[in-house]
Formats: sequence, C-alpha cells, structure tokens
Amino acid sequence: MRRPHATLLLTLIVAAGCTQASAPGAPPPAPATSAAVPADPLPSWNDGATRQAIIAFVERVSKEGGADFVPVAERIAVFDNDGTLWSEQPIYFQLQFALDRVKAMAADHPEWKAKQPFKAVLEGDMKGVMASGEPGIFAMVTATHTGMTVDEFGDVVRAWADTARHPKTQRRYTEMVFQPMLEVLAYLRANGFKTYIVSGGGVEFMRPWAEKVYGIPPEQVVGSRGKLKYEVRDGKGVLLKLPDIDLVDDKAGKPVGISQVIGRRPIAAFGNSDGDFEMLEYVTTGPGPRFGLIVHHTDAEREWAYDRESHIGRLVRGLDEAATRKWVLADMKQDWKAIYPPAP
Amino acid sequence: MRRPHATLLLTLIVAAGCTQASAPGAPPPAPATSAAVPADPLPSWNDGATRQAIIAFVERVSKEGGADFVPVAERIAVFDNDGTLWSEQPIYFQLQFALDRVKAMAADHPEWKAKQPFKAVLEGDMKGVMASGEPGIFAMVTATHTGMTVDEFGDVVRAWADTARHPKTQRRYTEMVFQPMLEVLAYLRANGFKTYIVSGGGVEFMRPWAEKVYGIPPEQVVGSRGKLKYEVRDGKGVLLKLPDIDLVDDKAGKPVGISQVIGRRPIAAFGNSDGDFEMLEYVTTGPGPRFGLIVHHTDAEREWAYDRESHIGRLVRGLDEAATRKWVLADMKQDWKAIYPPAP
Repeated sequence: MRRPHATLLLTLIVAAGCTQASAPGAPPPAPATSAAVPADPLPSWNDGATRQAIIAFVERVSKEGGADFVPVAERIAVFDNDGTLWSEQPIYFQLQFALDRVKAMAADHPEWKAKQPFKAVLEGDMKGVMASGEPGIFAMVTATHTGMTVDEFGDVVRAWADTARHPKTQRRYTEMVFQPMLEVLAYLRANGFKTYIVSGGGVEFMRPWAEKVYGIPPEQVVGSRGKLKYEVRDGKGVLLKLPDIDLVDDKAGKPVGISQVIGRRPIAAFGNSDGDFEMLEYVTTGPGPRFGLIVHHTDAEREWAYDRESHIGRLVRGLDEAATRKWVLADMKQDWKAIYPPAP
Repeated sequence: MRRPHATLLLTLIVAAGCTQASAPGAPPPAPATSAAVPADPLPSWNDGATRQAIIAFVERVSKEGGADFVPVAERIAVFDNDGTLWSEQPIYFQLQFALDRVKAMAADHPEWKAKQPFKAVLEGDMKGVMASGEPGIFAMVTATHTGMTVDEFGDVVRAWADTARHPKTQRRYTEMVFQPMLEVLAYLRANGFKTYIVSGGGVEFMRPWAEKVYGIPPEQVVGSRGKLKYEVRDGKGVLLKLPDIDLVDDKAGKPVGISQVIGRRPIAAFGNSDGDFEMLEYVTTGPGPRFGLIVHHTDAEREWAYDRESHIGRLVRGLDEAATRKWVLADMKQDWKAIYPPAP
C-alpha cells in the first residue's frame, strides 16, 4: 500500500474511533405510515421547504417540453452512503465489520493474541486499537479485506450483514438505512433517474447488499477500492484482492470515481459531510438544472447529532456554503417523520 | 507515467504500425437487406452454426421457467471494441486520432518541427514515428490525450469522429463499425441484456460517440484510462487528464476493469484477439449458462484477414483453445452478409 493513499483511507477509518457525537437514546423509531397517503412519493418527509425542493426539482427535469427538461439518459443521481443512506455512528459500519472479522478469524491466527492491534481488538480494547495508529489499522484492514477473491469477500460480507447487529439499536446494520432516503431513491427511479452510490467506503463491501437494501445494482456502486489481480484457480477465472489502494473515493476522489465509472456529470447529488463537498460541487456546477442536498444530523434522540466538531462525518464547509451554493440542507429532526424503516 | 504500465499501453499502440494484414481491396460493401425479413433479429448473419449459437444462447437464458433462465439484472454482455465492434487496420483508429491531433495542434507547437516523433508525424513519415520507440509514442499520446479536461477532450474526439475519414474506405471511422455486431448488440438489449464495451482503447476516446454509434451509454464503457485530477476552474468543477496511466484494460486487465466498474461477472463476452482471452475466460468459467464469441478476421476482400501472424489483433491462443472452451468462432467471410452499415 502506498503511503500517501493509505493516509487518506486511514483517516476515513481511524476517525471513527474519536467521535464526539451523542449516542442515540431512543428505541428504534415507529414505522412510517406509508399506507396513509398512497399518492405521496415521500411519506416519511414532513411537508416543508426540503421536501418541496426535492419534488420541485424532479418535476422540473422530468416535465416533457419544459424549459428544464432533462432526457432520461442524463438523469443520474449520486448518493454518498455513510451518513447519507445509513448511519455511521459510533464508528463507520465497515470498521465494525473489520473488528468483527478479526474476532472471527482469530482462531486461524494464534499469533494475533500477542500482536497489536489484533490483541487489542480481541480484548475489546478500542483505545488500544486506535493507539496502534495508521500502521495498526492498515494491518487490520489488510488482514480482513485482502488476500481472498472478490467473490469470497462478498460471501463474508453477506454473512456478516445478515447476522451482525448494531450495539445501540440492536438492528442489523442494513436495517439502519434511512427510510426517507429510500423513498428519495425510489422516487427518483420512478421518474427515470439512474441512482448511484458514490462512497468513501469500500466498493466490494457495499455491492453484496446494496441491491437488496437500496435497489442499487453492483454496477451502480462506486467506492474506494484496492487493486485486483486476475488469476485462474481450478480452471476458473477469479479476482484476487491485493493490499494496495487503487482509489480513495472521498473528497476530490469522488468526482474522479464518478468520471471513471459513470463517465458523465450527474445532475443530482446527496451527501452529509465535507467528504462529499467536491462531489456536490462537481455535480451542481454543471450546466442546466442541478440539485444538491446535505443530510444534516440534528437528531440526537432518534439517531445522532453531529456536524462541525465531529471527527466522523464532519460538516463545516458544507454548512457554511450551502446557502450560497443553493444546496438544500435536510434537517433530520425537522424534516424526517421516521429515521429507519419499520422494524422487521 | 509509470514505466511498467506504460509499456503495456504502448505495446497496444505501437504494434499498430507493424501490421502484416492484407489491405482491403474492395469498395464499401453493399448495405444489408435488413428490410427483407422483418422478424429476423440478425439479418446480416448468414444462417449457420454461429448465428444459431447466438440465438440459442439468448433464448436459453431468457426463457422464463427454463433450466438456464437468467434474471434480467444478471444479463450482462461485454464487447471488446477494436476488431470486435469496428475495424482496427491498418492502425488502431485511436492511434490515427493521435496522429491527426499532432497535425492539428502543430501550429501551436512550432518546436515540433524539429522534435521527434512530432517531426516525423508532420512529415508523414510513419517509419520515423515508429523509430522513435516507446518514449516517442509516449510523448505523442501525452501531448494529444492529456493536459485538458475530460469534457474538452470529449469535444475534440467528437469533432474528429464527425470529420476524419479512413484512408482506404473513405468512410468516417464510426461508419466502420460492424453491421452484424450492431445487430447482436440490439438483439441482446431487446432480450433484457445490458451491453458493455470493455476495450484496451481509452475510455474517454470511446465515450463521446459510443452512445450514438452503438447505443452504449458512457456508464457502460470500460476502457484503459489515465489518472484524473479534480479542479475548480472559473467556479466550475472539472476533471483534468493527467499523463499517468491508471488502468490498462487489456489481457488480464480486462477482468480487473470489469470487476471495478461492473462489479459482477458478465454471462457473455465478445472479442477478436488474444487481448480478449482473459475476459472470455473470466466470463465463460463462471457458473450457469455462458457464451463466448471470437470475431475471426478472414475477409481480405471486404475487410482485412489476419490472426496468428498479425502484430495487431493477434489471435493465437484463442484459435487454439476456442473448441475446447466452447467459444464460438465467427468467420467474418462465411458468417457475415455485410461488414459495415449501409453507406450513409
């Protein structure tokens, strides 16, 4: 792994241990009463400026013959994942996955009992994990995310997503997706949009469950990625995950990932932190109608409240410039009737 | 540009100057009589084993309730571009573009009159161009393909594609696409397939015209690519093309490009050279129904004839192993009623 790239990725992951966000105090929220208003495309959004802005944009670009009509082929919307489509507290869920994997793999690695940061992970000592610094976190990510094929890793992720539960909510992580955002995804798709994830998280960590959870197929997931090596094993072509970073899909890396994979400028972007700033800027400085939205985490009771001072999902520049850039700020506490989908 | 990667890409481009293929002797072919049999999805294919194999595969995977039924979401087909969807003789069309660009840009570069390989290009001395070797070709590709934004480059490519004409056929390069393959693309899409280009050529060279010519949108074009840098110019986010290679999407790089961008194993692959071998292998060694096809250039009269001995589009291992791997060999001379679309 090359150090300059590694630093960026590790910032993404390490910061998770230092969050100052308030913990959620409330039990899982009540289900959104989506059956009450069948014609409402956004039933979990309170009526107000935010909801109206979303609907007004979609109607503008999809009105045939209108001045701001955008052909279906160009209706591309991009969504950050952590903090925008699902929660990201108290640590990025992908970091929790890495910690869980260390525990699950420990039986095959007796040497970890005496080796940091694995020792600290196995002893539940998060301070010790973080004290191992970048080299430690790098060793942990390498041990849990590389050295297997993409397909094998996908099976591991799926098994984890099916069983692991968040320590505070006791929900599966994939049940901590935001119901109002699921409705935005569905509403956009119903109006001809192609919806993409563009996340700092690992692309191979998201693809195994994104289709089931978000309705977003693997080919519409852009994320950070490691290098891959093609090999033939038992006569079958496979892709081996290597411990070298290929793209850090965060900050200025997001427009790069978009250009590489999508190949044209989306017309709508949804984020929640300054890691999404360049993506929002790239999308909303193109010609024609544009839409940018920031999910502002303001609800300490039902989710978490954090922005300027947080080490995870830090939002400073986005708050300062949203108004002048005409980006919509979605206030979680005010705008959302429900946070998560109904308990399963 | 890192040398190990550069070498691979340059092999792709330089080889073009050394082709041993026979030149086309015939005028542009007569249009396919596509109106004769309206119900025929492949009117430019002669009836025979190749045509039947294509249709049998598509019917197998799309027959609901059938043993080999494949859900629409998984019906992904990948196509090489050079030599598979359009011609590639006597030099890769992208190399011709680079040569044309050197000529077009020469007025702004008076120093090129005395600097190889630019001097040789301007004097029409192809031997001199090739004699400049990898460093020379690298300088030419860098000068013509980088240092501008992705959008600016797209405009340049579009202008070239609209005007430049092939020296032998006098057709526009985008009119030297293979009519039978256009029919395969349309037939697959009509049966729920998502069609992708996966080419050793530059992704930003293909995207500007692939939608118009092949019906393949930018987000379904995978290719070799340089590194990009996000910048803000006059308040607008842009992506600058850098002179460093990010992916050589050829040979073992093709499954890598597929995994990065598509994120799942396609079920059908179409190629023409050993540069497509690993892609065909990766696609056809997955579980369930699989289809691999190699376009064999056998028609010296209507197109070009080349395989084992050619320095461009060399096909050795593909010919040797097609039968055991159950890949279909499409014999251009025998299987295709027409090569190119009707003259416009």
